[in-house]
Amino acid sequence: MTIFSKIIAGEIPSYKIAENDRFYAFLDIFPLRKGHTLVIPKIEVDNLFDVPDEYLGELLVFAKPIAKAIEKSFNCNRCGVSVVGIEVPHAHVHLIPLNNANDLNFTQPKLKLSPEEMKEIQELIVKSL
Amino acid sequence: MTIFSKIIAGEIPSYKIAENDRFYAFLDIFPLRKGHTLVIPKIEVDNLFDVPDEYLGELLVFAKPIAKAIEKSFNCNRCGVSVVGIEVPHAHVHLIPLNNANDLNFTQPKLKLSPEEMKEIQELIVKSL
Repeated sequence: MTIFSKIIAGEIPSYKIAENDRFYAFLDIFPLRKGHTLVIPKIEVDNLFDVPDEYLGELLVFAKPIAKAIEKSFNCNRCGVSVVGIEVPHAHVHLIPLNNANDLNFTQPKLKLSPEEMKEIQELIVKSL
Repeated sequence: MTIFSKIIAGEIPSYKIAENDRFYAFLDIFPLRKGHTLVIPKIEVDNLFDVPDEYLGELLVFAKPIAKAIEKSFNCNRCGVSVVGIEVPHAHVHLIPLNNANDLNFTQPKLKLSPEEMKEIQELIVKSL
């Protein structure tokens, strides 16, 4: 069972943003920027492009209102998207508020946010959904 | 008319990879890595998350065989995805073969490839489709 499946199952806590039958969205605990959110399918597939079409076809539609809420919640040009996928073998899409290309640069150090800050960010995004 | 609409219309040449009624895929002429491909909708919408749902719902399904062809054509762990979108006001999804997070880092210098190299890369990917 991947760490993400444990998060979906509630065995590991997460700062949940949204959920439906097929997807779960929650704050990345190693964020590049405040508002950095992960969208994952509720099936364990490593590579995004091995995820079945019925999921792939709904992923961006599910992500859209979350991206819009992120755009509303943080001072940014728009919500960027990134799929790297090397660290956890469970497909995941990063949604990150961006003002420049460096905001999506995964080689930089991650932010260290307190649980209070994470909770605030979660509430800010959920309120804008 | 965006530069991408001119590419779709054939007014500006491109190294085309695939096309259907809604999308056009072609090599990025400022690639981060060999195989770096752009997927764009055939409508002029700046922000990916403003693209209508009927397009959003098909985008990743259209991109899937292209991503698989990129994975087959280049020595990589998988095909990564990035949507930055600041430079051209026409939504575009980057597909980039990756082995590490730096392969998706848009702050690094782009590759300078000759037309012959671009043509070779185009043929390699199209052959694997």
